[in-house]
This record gives sequence, structure tokens and C-alpha cells, in this order.
Amino acid sequence: MSLQALSSEYYDLNGTHIEVLEEPPTALEFSRLVHISRPVLIRGVQIPTVRLWDDDYLAASMGEAEISVAVTPNGHADAVTRGPDGKLYFVEPHLEKMKMSEFLGPKVRGEPHRSEIYYLQSQNGNVYSNRFFEGAPDPSEFEALRPDIPSEIPWCSAAFGRSPDAVNLWIGNHESVTSIHSDPYENIYTVVRGSKHFTLLPPAEGWCLQERMYPHAKWTRESSNAALAITASPNFSIRWASVVDPDIPGNLPPEAHPIRVSIEAGESLFLPAGWWHHVRQSDETIAINWWYDMEMRGMSWVLLSFLRGGGDVPYGNDADASDNDGQEPL
Amino acid sequence: MSLQALSSEYYDLNGTHIEVLEEPPTALEFSRLVHISRPVLIRGVQIPTVRLWDDDYLAASMGEAEISVAVTPNGHADAVTRGPDGKLYFVEPHLEKMKMSEFLGPKVRGEPHRSEIYYLQSQNGNVYSNRFFEGAPDPSEFEALRPDIPSEIPWCSAAFGRSPDAVNLWIGNHESVTSIHSDPYENIYTVVRGSKHFTLLPPAEGWCLQERMYPHAKWTRESSNAALAITASPNFSIRWASVVDPDIPGNLPPEAHPIRVSIEAGESLFLPAGWWHHVRQSDETIAINWWYDMEMRGMSWVLLSFLRGGGDVPYGNDADASDNDGQEPL
Repeated sequence: MSLQALSSEYYDLNGTHIEVLEEPPTALEFSRLVHISRPVLIRGVQIPTVRLWDDDYLAASMGEAEISVAVTPNGHADAVTRGPDGKLYFVEPHLEKMKMSEFLGPKVRGEPHRSEIYYLQSQNGNVYSNRFFEGAPDPSEFEALRPDIPSEIPWCSAAFGRSPDAVNLWIGNHESVTSIHSDPYENIYTVVRGSKHFTLLPPAEGWCLQERMYPHAKWTRESSNAALAITASPNFSIRWASVVDPDIPGNLPPEAHPIRVSIEAGESLFLPAGWWHHVRQSDETIAINWWYDMEMRGMSWVLLSFLRGGGDVPYGNDADASDNDGQEPL
Repeated sequence: MSLQALSSEYYDLNGTHIEVLEEPPTALEFSRLVHISRPVLIRGVQIPTVRLWDDDYLAASMGEAEISVAVTPNGHADAVTRGPDGKLYFVEPHLEKMKMSEFLGPKVRGEPHRSEIYYLQSQNGNVYSNRFFEGAPDPSEFEALRPDIPSEIPWCSAAFGRSPDAVNLWIGNHESVTSIHSDPYENIYTVVRGSKHFTLLPPAEGWCLQERMYPHAKWTRESSNAALAITASPNFSIRWASVVDPDIPGNLPPEAHPIRVSIEAGESLFLPAGWWHHVRQSDETIAINWWYDMEMRGMSWVLLSFLRGGGDVPYGNDADASDNDGQEPL
């Protein structure tokens, strides 16, 4: 049986159904859902203090603290992008330090002809990292907001039998997009303000995304006022999906069955390990996510690797796969 | 990546480790173990009343009730066996009705030159079937023993979120063997007396067993005193492992990593859905098992089918696979 046949059987059995819970599950109920490993929309995950989070509160709480913000000319951080030489690169964003008040101010939100997109998406455990849970020093740019952000979701930690590996704060608007990818983490994603729009593919349909090796690059600028440009990182390649935006008609083969789900303020998404996700957001969206290590024992990890086609994939710039990626040369 | 490579990665990650619990898990702990889907030896599953189960108690409790016992000339019920025509058949046992006192008496246990092997292994929910849990009439040959046999294991039912599909009583001795096979059920197997010896292979190593299609047959006798003979069932084939006994050296390829575990009286084995198992027992072993439906949502079912190589397998009598099966012509 091929990967194609396997994904077809998976779809025949599961369709595009996602479970909706009107209130958070118990740890035991959640443990069963983790075993099923399909996305779940969960309402009623209460984080009381974040209701206070208007811009003034955030700016005042954070004060002079500097935060790392991703800057790109196109809103696509960590995405396959065509470079000036016509080649495709996996391009990391430029990182810029600024105060929360600056990030939330007109420089970032100024309309209409701003040429750069700012997205707070540092996703390195920017609120709590695994060091925090190990009792080690864990400095955070968002130290001042920690009293508002629970380090754990009790029913998740109980179900997984462990503390999170990372807790992240995300702030961005409709111009910021996360290209489709998967993480080896169980993910609880809670929207505090605005709404997040996910396009999801199950691990079984990963072959539809044509992962390829792309040379690594970063958005950089020569001086603080210069325009961003792509700078290649020598001898460093990244495996990434060739299909950058699954929402563009024709980008996915007919065998793919994307699930589109919007998470509104006050709602949470359980995104199981290995699920492919492309993420957009409406204006001014704030979200918090808790990443938990996936269970490595048993079949889950081996299966995710298998469904990605194993260890070796072709180079993206050699393959025809890059012809229909919807990327314009810069 | 091939099935061979997948099973190799599974072995590299998991080895042949099986978890041993000194006391039964909580429902939540068990739910996590179900997700890992590896065998677990569990001590301390208490079924107080079965401690009374000596032969006299069983015979007296069951009285005149008739029970269905599997009879074969070789102790191999439900096994691939070479018929008098030289062909291999999947042969079901002859079923004989008798009283418990007769089954436990010298006819069955008479030594040493008895020509037939009796095994109580009806495994059709012989104590409780799904009808019982649905509140429907559920007549059982072992009605008289029901007060001694809990219909559910509380932490299992809570973890699975459902009642069992079937509860079975097994009584046999060292002459009775169950050929290697897998079931689409989560299985809790508790030994009451004696010991069960399992040889296990993970679903990922199923390809090592070379499933083939075998014509179906039954052990039958022409009259009540006649010897058992194989009678083929026309136009009816069964998919079964060609490797009948994985404990015979050379029967398994070197890529297989069998796990051998003995379950003693008072111990239980959690045998996850899809795990291949060959089962022997020491003298006069009594066991009870609870089968729970496996979770059909998500990937588990699709994966088990995939690991068995999908829908079509060759016919066993056409293939070279039958040459090294260790079966002698009758």
C-alpha cells in the first residue's frame, strides 16, 4: 500500500470532521482525544487575567522591556521565498528589538503603505521555556506578563503526564502568515483577541505538500534604515513544504483534504503533533500556545517520520515542484 | 520508506522493552499506556472470588451445564495445518459439548497417551458478550461463574470510555497452543491459575509473519468415536500468518524481534490491538480476558491495515512461504 492509498483510507475513515467541545475536557477525556490525534476546537478555556489585555495594559505592563519581533517585507516569516537570483530559499525573518509600546504603535500598525510587516512570533518558549519547568533560570522578554499567563493547562499536563516544553505569546495582524509546516509537539493554541484561521492537513496527507530541501537564508539589512534583503546562509539547508500556501486554488493535489477552522477569542485549538498547519489571522490577533513534547515511545514518532517519506527528499531548486509554488521573484 | 525500514525504526526506538506495573494503573495512567500501545505486565489486578477456583469448586458451580470445548489431535486450534492432500489449511477445532466435571476429569487430563487435546477457548464472549453490556439477553455457558467474574475492569472501561466487547474464560494445559495472530481489540488478559507464555511481535513486524490466504477447514469426526479428520469448507478462505510457531528457530526472519513474556497467576497482560501473539501455557492454566473495541477514529485502524500490507495477500498453497512453516503432513 502506498502513502497515497494510506492517506485515502485515513480520509475515508475520518473525513474532515473536527470535534468541538463546549467546555474543556477532563484530563482523561483529553487523553483519549490525544490518542485519536485529530484537531479539537475547545471552548471555555479560561485565562481570566488576559481579558485585561488591551493595548494600554500591555504597553504599560511591559514598560521599557525589549521584545524580539520578526520583520519581513511580505509577512511570510519562515517561508520558502524566491530570492533575487531566481532560486528558492527558506527565509527566516529579520529580528528587531523594540518596546511593546513601539510594537503596538503606529510604526507597526501604520496604514496604508507600510513596506514591512512585524509579527511577534519568536516561538522559542518566549514566555516559559523548558528551563522554567526544570526549575532553572528562564529569563523571558515577557517576564512582566507572566503573572497573566498560566505556565500550564492543568488538564493537558495531567493527560500528558508532563509540563509543557514551551509557552509562547503571538501578536500579529492580517498581514502576517505562517507557511504550512508541522511540529513534533502536541499544541494547545488559545486565542486571546481577534481570530486565527488555520488550514490543516493530517500527517497522512503530508506527501501532498512535497517537502524539499531549500537553502537557508535570512532577511537582513545592511544598516538600520536599509531595505530588507535575502542573505543566504552558506552550506545550510532546511527541509520544508514546497506548497507554501495551501489556500491558493491548485496548490494542493486533489487527494488533499484541507480542514479550515477559525479560532475566535476565547477558543482554543488542540493541534496534535505532526498535523500540518498554515495560519493566518484577522486584524490584531493575540494568542498563547502551550507546546507539550509528544509521546516518543510506541509508534507515533516513527509514523510521523514514515508519513513524511523518511529521511531523504530532493532539493527544491532542482525539482519541478518549485514551478507551481505561487512565488513571484522578488 | 518500506515496511521493513519502518519496523526497523520502530525497533530502534522501542527495543523489546515492556513496562511492568506493580499495581493496576489509574484510568488516566492506563489511557497514556494505550496511546503508547505497547504490552504492559500488570500485577495486582484483584479478582477476589477466583481464588476459590479449584477443580471441585468449578465442577460444583457449573453442575450439569454444558460447555463448548475445542478438540484437536495436535493442540493447535485455529491454526494453519497440512491436510492429508498435502495442502495447507486454516483448520478450526472440532467443538464438543461436555460438563465442566467431565472437562476437568481424566478424559481431558488423562495421561500419557491420549490422542486428542481439549482446550476451553471458545472466545466468543463466552462469559459476557456485547449483548450483556447493551442490556440485551446474553445467555452464557458460564452463567454459574458470572458472580465470580467481573464484567468490566474499572480502570480499563474508564480509559477506553466504553464497556468491553467480550469477556472470555480460557482453560487449557501445556498441550494447547494458540497460533500467532493479531486481534483488532485492546486486550486485558488475567491469569487465574498456572502461567501463560506469550511470544509477541509489534504490528510493525507483521510483515515478518507472511500472511497468506488459506482454504478454511474444520476438524470433524464421522461418528462420536471416530478419529478427527480435516474437512475442507468449500469456497471459503482465511487470511492467516504462514509462520505458525515463531518459537521454532529459523521460522522468523532476523528482522523480527519477538518479545517473550510469561504471565503468572495473579498477573495481567495488557496486549494492545494489533499486536501479534503466540500463546502457550503451563499445566492447567485458567485465564480470563477482557476485549475492548479499539479506537477506530484517527490513524490506529488504518495503520494496522497498512502494516499488514493492505488488502491482498497471495494464496499460501501457491507460495514458497509454506515451505518453511515447520508443518509435517498428517
